Amino acid sequence: MTDSSFTLIERHACCGGEVRFLSHQSRELGLPARVNIFLPKEALGGESVPAIYVLAGLTCNQDTFLIKSNAIRYAAEYGLALVAPDTSPRGADVAGEDDTYDLGAGAGYYVDATSDPWAAHYRMGSYIRHELPALIEQHCPVKAGCRGIMGHSMGGMGALSIALGDSGAWTTVSAFAPIASPSRVDWGQKATAAYFGGHEAEWGQYDPCLLLKSGRTHPGTFLVDQGLDDEFLPRLMPDLLEQAAKDAEQSLQLRRHEGYDHSYWFVQSFIQDHLKHHADGLL
Amino acid sequence: MTDSSFTLIERHACCGGEVRFLSHQSRELGLPARVNIFLPKEALGGESVPAIYVLAGLTCNQDTFLIKSNAIRYAAEYGLALVAPDTSPRGADVAGEDDTYDLGAGAGYYVDATSDPWAAHYRMGSYIRHELPALIEQHCPVKAGCRGIMGHSMGGMGALSIALGDSGAWTTVSAFAPIASPSRVDWGQKATAAYFGGHEAEWGQYDPCLLLKSGRTHPGTFLVDQGLDDEFLPRLMPDLLEQAAKDAEQSLQLRRHEGYDHSYWFVQSFIQDHLKHHADGLL
Repeated sequence: MTDSSFTLIERHACCGGEVRFLSHQSRELGLPARVNIFLPKEALGGESVPAIYVLAGLTCNQDTFLIKSNAIRYAAEYGLALVAPDTSPRGADVAGEDDTYDLGAGAGYYVDATSDPWAAHYRMGSYIRHELPALIEQHCPVKAGCRGIMGHSMGGMGALSIALGDSGAWTTVSAFAPIASPSRVDWGQKATAAYFGGHEAEWGQYDPCLLLKSGRTHPGTFLVDQGLDDEFLPRLMPDLLEQAAKDAEQSLQLRRHEGYDHSYWFVQSFIQDHLKHHADGLL
Repeated sequence: MTDSSFTLIERHACCGGEVRFLSHQSRELGLPARVNIFLPKEALGGESVPAIYVLAGLTCNQDTFLIKSNAIRYAAEYGLALVAPDTSPRGADVAGEDDTYDLGAGAGYYVDATSDPWAAHYRMGSYIRHELPALIEQHCPVKAGCRGIMGHSMGGMGALSIALGDSGAWTTVSAFAPIASPSRVDWGQKATAAYFGGHEAEWGQYDPCLLLKSGRTHPGTFLVDQGLDDEFLPRLMPDLLEQAAKDAEQSLQLRRHEGYDHSYWFVQSFIQDHLKHHADGLL
């Protein structure tokens, strides 16, 4: 990374390419932000490659997905970059932001908070939708506008909602155990109270099922994997996602897996299919 | 795990098989010990499968190798169990055992301490060589005596030394960035002072290069991968291992990799070859 926008913190050769730990000063977050990327050997050799943005879930950070998902070897095989952002701003210094796992630090929900004191820094929505891809495409060897997005749990919700919010900006989409309709479950309702000052209507921009209901669709097929022994199943509501997609005529391949839970042991079991899904759409 | 010898703490479906987090009361360690295993679908279906023991390095525990190495998908593909023990006893309550990363907790060196106060619990040597495989083979669906061993760094040293110590007990052997001769480097010398009360000669049972020099060999080929940008290269001494193996006529495939460091980003890059090496020898 020769550019001043990113500071290179660590680099590690991996699977013929390179993992880079970066930091930068985020305009949207108003704070330094961390992001990890994987560049396959093609990118190190000067080619511009497609990039998949990978969004992690509650309690996670920019390290989690790359360490635990086993995505890198398939990204290397297919010649794809991976971009792994953090799950919230860090150091926003909002009272209580570190008190619970499902609000504040590690729980940005990929939304823009509208209510003080959260609104100043909790802007992961605009950060992931606009600021980060623009920066990555300006400064890294990735192909402009050739993007996929995927995520796990809260990050699966993020991937679906970001793709539905601007379907032209994201070519391929997939999710593991996404929160299909955050506005209807306690996790999201806690965020409503804090980030949106109680205004539930804000979820209209971020809730995958509400977006589908409002007529938003994406031209690609959403690949979604869901474990049937997922301890959070009542909060994820894959059936609701399936119905909303059907009603909206959104192409969805929802695969239910007997015996699998919510962990990255589940994610790693099916990650190859996701990378293949993105490679098929982007290459 | 229906047997009373192991307590099942967590189980997670993974890659068609299952990861199990177990604990048991160790006779050798005189303490409760943790061990994680992966059983491929063949084992869940009632077959007895070969088992590979995977030994982690300094600062790690029973979780590290399974989470970070990406070994599971290849174990699943080849039908191999993985057994991931901890790297030291826990809760031995020896003064200073948590003070430094390279002695005490997380740094058992797969040796039996002979000097008080360490000798009572720091017996990872006998634990990994005898107690754990006997327990695993008695209580898990693995094939008795059909074992491989591999490890990373301190665990690579453990794998080589354990295999050289009882070549009939371990059919296949591999290592990532092993400490080739702990007795000659500061890490080992610190352990000498503590675990062996200054008696360097104890390393004769545990130091791979000393074992080779004393005439110990193993009938298989040792597969060893080493990154050339490894920050610990001067303490690992792969050249010394190569020379000792040559002198002892020990078959060794030592692969040096430009640009790779000591991390699990390196390990995951070559893990498939290691699982293949073990599968070829065990199946």
